[in-house]
Amino acid sequence: MGRWEPDARGRMQRAALELYSERGFEQTTVADIAERAGVTERTFFRHFADKREVLFDGSAALQQAVVDAIADAPDDASPVDVATAGMLACAGVLDAHRDYPRRRAQVIADNQDLQERELLKMATLSTAVSAALRDRGVAALAADLAAEVGVTIFKVGFDRWVGGDDGADLAECMRIALGELRAVTASSAG
Amino acid sequence: MGRWEPDARGRMQRAALELYSERGFEQTTVADIAERAGVTERTFFRHFADKREVLFDGSAALQQAVVDAIADAPDDASPVDVATAGMLACAGVLDAHRDYPRRRAQVIADNQDLQERELLKMATLSTAVSAALRDRGVAALAADLAAEVGVTIFKVGFDRWVGGDDGADLAECMRIALGELRAVTASSAG
Repeated sequence: MGRWEPDARGRMQRAALELYSERGFEQTTVADIAERAGVTERTFFRHFADKREVLFDGSAALQQAVVDAIADAPDDASPVDVATAGMLACAGVLDAHRDYPRRRAQVIADNQDLQERELLKMATLSTAVSAALRDRGVAALAADLAAEVGVTIFKVGFDRWVGGDDGADLAECMRIALGELRAVTASSAG
Repeated sequence: MGRWEPDARGRMQRAALELYSERGFEQTTVADIAERAGVTERTFFRHFADKREVLFDGSAALQQAVVDAIADAPDDASPVDVATAGMLACAGVLDAHRDYPRRRAQVIADNQDLQERELLKMATLSTAVSAALRDRGVAALAADLAAEVGVTIFKVGFDRWVGGDDGADLAECMRIALGELRAVTASSAG
């Protein structure tokens, strides 16, 4: 495939997700994906290591967006607010592609190996958020916990967003989760 | 192996962890484990599905202890305090076996497949904690968030406990993590 066929990568991603939704992840081959996307298998493997990685292609860019937003946050923001600002940076991207992340989430929920990989990506993201907070001078324990709070409100907000029919965007779902997290944490006797 | 050889299961677990620490998980076979434990491979497979499951054998019992403690918590306790009480229920067990959980954590940290499995177990535990909180009448969103708080202080407390040289027990490390989590969350502008 040459330059006269733009967005081969995007077509492969969309084709893969369609096929995973229709047939299941296990039942889909790289040959199936290539055929539907109108590319050769060789082209597929120039872009992706295997059929699983198609689903995690955006992880590195997402993590970079989060880390950049953390570095750019105001100096006087609290660690949790900085972590939240980081996680909100990716919410806008996902909000703009409402259908893809929803269908992707369903494919992942149906396959344990994919669930495990997704959890590892989130754990890696939490570690990156904590490191970015430490770079701002936040102490190690506070950085780890603020990072976990950020990832938690992302996960819980994402589940509500995927499952919700009320049209709330992901950023709003995350803000609701943060408000509730603050409420339940404050009510702890400690 | 018959009843005159007690604790074959425990011997296999200890032998497996020793070998994983010495040689690495990938380089250890079931035959190696069986030999060191003084059992046949057939005995091994009567107890464990594969060499990975040896490391996760306690998960179900751990989760049951957590869920039981949640059910037994005082009626007027807040969701986060109930979730914390649940997670503290297993801290005593791990504190009593300081060396095994530490070495196990190192083996898991060295292998991505094991990390993914561990993360899935923790996610499953979080889901179980949330369900146990809902059974007590806690609303869904608060239950999900309180469960994530419980798992977070367990994870962060566990990391401090494993890495710490000050002799603090796991329960104390978890309480410190909860105090810090409350502090960072309270300082959020929301």
